[in-house]
Amino acid sequence: MGSPFSRRVELALKLKGIPYEYIEEDLSNKSPLLLQYNLIHKKVPVLLHNGKPIVESLVIIEYIDETWKENPILPEDPYERATSRFWTKFIDEKCMGALRNACWSYGEESEKLMEEARGLLRTLENELKGKRFFGGEDIGLVDIAANFIAFWVGVLQEVRGVSLIDKDTFPILHEWTERFVSSSVVKETLPPRDKLLSFFQARIEAMAATKSMIYK
Amino acid sequence: MGSPFSRRVELALKLKGIPYEYIEEDLSNKSPLLLQYNLIHKKVPVLLHNGKPIVESLVIIEYIDETWKENPILPEDPYERATSRFWTKFIDEKCMGALRNACWSYGEESEKLMEEARGLLRTLENELKGKRFFGGEDIGLVDIAANFIAFWVGVLQEVRGVSLIDKDTFPILHEWTERFVSSSVVKETLPPRDKLLSFFQARIEAMAATKSMIYK
Repeated sequence: MGSPFSRRVELALKLKGIPYEYIEEDLSNKSPLLLQYNLIHKKVPVLLHNGKPIVESLVIIEYIDETWKENPILPEDPYERATSRFWTKFIDEKCMGALRNACWSYGEESEKLMEEARGLLRTLENELKGKRFFGGEDIGLVDIAANFIAFWVGVLQEVRGVSLIDKDTFPILHEWTERFVSSSVVKETLPPRDKLLSFFQARIEAMAATKSMIYK
Repeated sequence: MGSPFSRRVELALKLKGIPYEYIEEDLSNKSPLLLQYNLIHKKVPVLLHNGKPIVESLVIIEYIDETWKENPILPEDPYERATSRFWTKFIDEKCMGALRNACWSYGEESEKLMEEARGLLRTLENELKGKRFFGGEDIGLVDIAANFIAFWVGVLQEVRGVSLIDKDTFPILHEWTERFVSSSVVKETLPPRDKLLSFFQARIEAMAATKSMIYK
């Protein structure tokens, strides 16, 4: 339920207005279908089109944008395309891990990881200055890639009682998260907030139980 | 001298026949120019075109391919483009780190890391079956991204006296490395083999010195 990567692909398809069939995958008990179509990584998402599988969320989104030309996700100009791809890589390779680590950290390493994450958020805040979305007036590739930052991080903050993307520290980014998650097409692709909340809550309790076992 | 990422960009430019000026960067003493044009990562390569910087080797290569249409680097068909991007990510995110770790490992962890690297190479070997290059008849995006595997790994093998991509275990991949490095345009973009060899040799000696300081 919790994969932001699958939701990226759904959002791209919805922005394009392409009908699709969604098949839920139980990652604790992977189906033969998943193993058949993503033999190498055995991960979601997989897009099946004309009987052929495409894997890796960003590769899928570029495929979708190249196959169905209406409502473009990437800009037309090569330099702007490069800029979009740069920020997408930045989010994937730098921000997601750092934000996840910061949100799940405990004890004395927590403040260090929080600071690290805030440094990256500062960079994104600067990039968003004067724009409605990373894509400009409309949701584009970078916004889609940043769905984890807009929605998942908010839920994690609430569960852990920490503050990362708050109104005072990152006003522009904070406004963007609200604008993004309240867009009607984005809403359709997000997991129910209360379910994600209980999902993370259960994980925290399981972690706490393991810890008390270790420290007892 | 040793960056395979910069060499990727040079190879893309040469395959396209685009003249360029190469500016060497001393990474131990980064220039104001590098910091100005790649403020976020402060890394090479940076492509300057029309006064604007593009960073991240794979982002640069897609930019080059979209800006100059002749001698395409990516295939035209969206599914084949997706496949090329998939393998490029596989090389960047899985193979390069694993191969580097395997080549630089010592002691008992070495065999484990070697086996891990061989598993990934086996996957590439299968992908290359029946093809001259990953790109088909000609050098394409995946071949460019795999320059580290074709050249740098060979030098590291020699320096460390280990065997990874040998003729018997990976005949197809081995033949591809020879075909790739002997291509005249590739040759122009590779650092001199003897210099890279001494560079790595010096690094190994420095590492050995540190180790003996630790164990003394």
